[in-house]
Amino acid sequence: MATAPSVSYSMTVRLEVPASGTAVSQLTTAVESSGGSVTGLDVTASGHEKLRIDVTIAATSTAHADEIVEKLRGIEGVSLGKVSDRTFLMHLGGKIEMQSKHPIRSRDDLSMVYTPGVARVCQAIANNPEDARRLTIKRNSVAVVTDGSAVLGLGNIGPKAALPVMEGKAALFKRFAGIDAWPLCLDTQDTDAIVEIVKAIAPGFAGINLEDISAPRCFEIEARLREALDIPVFHDDQHGTAIVVLAALTNALRVVDKKFEDVRVVMSGAGAAGTAILKLLMAAGIQHAVVADIDGVVHAGRKDLVDADPDSPLRWIADNTNPEGETGTLKEAVVGADVFIGVSAPNVLDGDDVAKMAQGAIVFALANPDPEVDPAIARQTASVVATGRSDFPNQINNVLVFPGVFRGLLDAQSRTVNTDMMLAAAGALADVVLDDERNANYIIPSVFNDKVAGAVADAVKEAAKAAGEAVTAATTA
Amino acid sequence: MATAPSVSYSMTVRLEVPASGTAVSQLTTAVESSGGSVTGLDVTASGHEKLRIDVTIAATSTAHADEIVEKLRGIEGVSLGKVSDRTFLMHLGGKIEMQSKHPIRSRDDLSMVYTPGVARVCQAIANNPEDARRLTIKRNSVAVVTDGSAVLGLGNIGPKAALPVMEGKAALFKRFAGIDAWPLCLDTQDTDAIVEIVKAIAPGFAGINLEDISAPRCFEIEARLREALDIPVFHDDQHGTAIVVLAALTNALRVVDKKFEDVRVVMSGAGAAGTAILKLLMAAGIQHAVVADIDGVVHAGRKDLVDADPDSPLRWIADNTNPEGETGTLKEAVVGADVFIGVSAPNVLDGDDVAKMAQGAIVFALANPDPEVDPAIARQTASVVATGRSDFPNQINNVLVFPGVFRGLLDAQSRTVNTDMMLAAAGALADVVLDDERNANYIIPSVFNDKVAGAVADAVKEAAKAAGEAVTAATTA
Repeated sequence: MATAPSVSYSMTVRLEVPASGTAVSQLTTAVESSGGSVTGLDVTASGHEKLRIDVTIAATSTAHADEIVEKLRGIEGVSLGKVSDRTFLMHLGGKIEMQSKHPIRSRDDLSMVYTPGVARVCQAIANNPEDARRLTIKRNSVAVVTDGSAVLGLGNIGPKAALPVMEGKAALFKRFAGIDAWPLCLDTQDTDAIVEIVKAIAPGFAGINLEDISAPRCFEIEARLREALDIPVFHDDQHGTAIVVLAALTNALRVVDKKFEDVRVVMSGAGAAGTAILKLLMAAGIQHAVVADIDGVVHAGRKDLVDADPDSPLRWIADNTNPEGETGTLKEAVVGADVFIGVSAPNVLDGDDVAKMAQGAIVFALANPDPEVDPAIARQTASVVATGRSDFPNQINNVLVFPGVFRGLLDAQSRTVNTDMMLAAAGALADVVLDDERNANYIIPSVFNDKVAGAVADAVKEAAKAAGEAVTAATTA
Repeated sequence: MATAPSVSYSMTVRLEVPASGTAVSQLTTAVESSGGSVTGLDVTASGHEKLRIDVTIAATSTAHADEIVEKLRGIEGVSLGKVSDRTFLMHLGGKIEMQSKHPIRSRDDLSMVYTPGVARVCQAIANNPEDARRLTIKRNSVAVVTDGSAVLGLGNIGPKAALPVMEGKAALFKRFAGIDAWPLCLDTQDTDAIVEIVKAIAPGFAGINLEDISAPRCFEIEARLREALDIPVFHDDQHGTAIVVLAALTNALRVVDKKFEDVRVVMSGAGAAGTAILKLLMAAGIQHAVVADIDGVVHAGRKDLVDADPDSPLRWIADNTNPEGETGTLKEAVVGADVFIGVSAPNVLDGDDVAKMAQGAIVFALANPDPEVDPAIARQTASVVATGRSDFPNQINNVLVFPGVFRGLLDAQSRTVNTDMMLAAAGALADVVLDDERNANYIIPSVFNDKVAGAVADAVKEAAKAAGEAVTAATTA
């Protein structure tokens, strides 16, 4: 499929061109004929002979950007200056910062913010540790924790290289939910060590967002931390994805007028995201699910699963899905399926496969940047198609979920995050799309829809309060 | 010694008083006759019959504040409303926050700050990890790490109760040096665990500031982290204190016209701060130092030291100080001493002890909030007196040091902090006080002197560059 020029491959090129003649129009023609797009053109200096122009250009890839620069260099009379990459410029020195909420202008300010005044506040918290949620940043802060082992589609690039993603995440937490998040990129990929570290840093935070930690370690890390900590632990790659998929599927089923309990769902991918999606869909009422991985359909009799560790995630899938005991390939499984959900690899299906699905087929092809099937081709026969891409309708984007989920958890001072809260988040997100707005090309709101975070937060807060009351009732019973 | 009312015990009291009559003047009289001080008086509502007044009052302690409130309650016609503690109000919800440097207004912004654009930046760092210092917050960020074991004078109050101090520290890092610090309050006091945790979180930071970790664990933690990490590790309670003491002593010796190599220094306290001060003073040229702790003067023959671990800090002191083999008590040791430096406990000396010191005696009584000797009494015979208190001249305050030291280290991208850098910091801080400004009551600048942080930073940066060049030269030799 053709990719459109994107600002994420955007550069600003400084050029000098003759003041007279057609050089400027030649520039834009050159960019456009190369498949780029001019998104800005500023004359930054002008003389009798020469103009200095800063042209901002969106390309489709780094190689494409280089190609456009070469084309510009070839125009007669044009001399090329500095080429600045807008995305890199935005990252210089980092994307986030720490700010003090109070000015420190005088000795009096200092004596309240720091010693000696601060001692009384410390003493109050020592006497009543719950006051940390009232008198410190703990109230509103989330640690964004990664080990850099599974960063975006880039793989195991390590903690330093993961930092730009975690900073971006922190920026989104603030932008969409007013949360103060700080990235912690860990220089270890040892499960025990990560668990100990996160336990140790927990006192200063009201929530832990695990991010880009590879499977299967992420399952154990999350489970052990949930057990150990009195603040919620959320693995966005699992739970954030599961919630947004469930919200989108809720609306997609409304569009094709089918019910959760009736549809047969075929999934491609049994990693962290796939497993979490599967579990949440089942909690929401899906009864017929079949999962395929690189070795084909997962079933209890599959050779690699007969002797598998009974606690392994794949074994869990084998024991809890595929009630008809289907075997074979993904392509075989999707025949007649109502729903396909891919969180795996590019182009595992083609248009013929989608055509063989049931009437009113729903296809979520979420592999990034290249989906499991070309969405335009899938849409020729499927009723609803969604992807992870921003240049196609129905973008499944975690940004719709994690800010609101944590806002709700923090506002409820929740000690955990459970399935009920996640179901509530998905329901609230689905319902942001009103009945008269919902259609095959609009099953999920835009990330800039300003109702999203609040709606998700309110639903999660209510569910967390209900869970808290349930816990209290059980404890006092 | 009498304590002056302080804003760190400041409250705002809402009162309703009769609109006519002398109630308002009775209010201020009542506050002042109780030893409090009115620092603000706002009429927030006015009617024919009644005025609503918010009076802000500084007291000397919590008990004193309560006493003043009772006095106000007793005035006829006055009804008392809400009493708000200004220091606590300032702490509500925490004192710091995370901010995004870039607005996220559109999908284009999102695609550069986060996926997909961020992937190229991650890739660049994966290819060249040093780029993390250019393209991420690592460039300018410091972790403020504590285990809550020795917080201010409050002792082992734990990680949550330590948070207000660490937030305050972060706020000061920003205010005085533009550094983005984030507090990490650890839920463990195990030396090995702390070392592993700090090593693991290091990739996202350019420096580690250890804070309020009790001795002797702090020595081992710092030493092992310095060995393991490629970013500087600074224990402010040790090194920050040592640098500011050395700076103050430099100017105090100039005032009394004595030389480092000639003076006899007696120290009270062999904890973290005491040991660090001692070592830095010796590096600066002090040749005659005697240290006393709770068991008296430290000497090689002292019963508890004969069989002590040869690596213990106290053993190091015994082997490296007290060349004349003095024994006995602190009070005996200070007779004839040129310099007394106390980092120990209140009132271990009295005026008679100070009177027995040498001509031109220098007394630094740094125990907080109550010094080793009343500074007003010490000043009757000593030539120069300094304390940790803000209500007496010559306040020895770490805020003069740590922001500038880290600014210099970060700007030099230093991988370590060594004695030369600390000596440079102390020299620069001393020299902020010009020759014609320096006198017995002005040996150290105010924390709000805007030359301080820059002068310290420049000196440290130069020393760090010199050290970096030395390392490079040694490696390539």
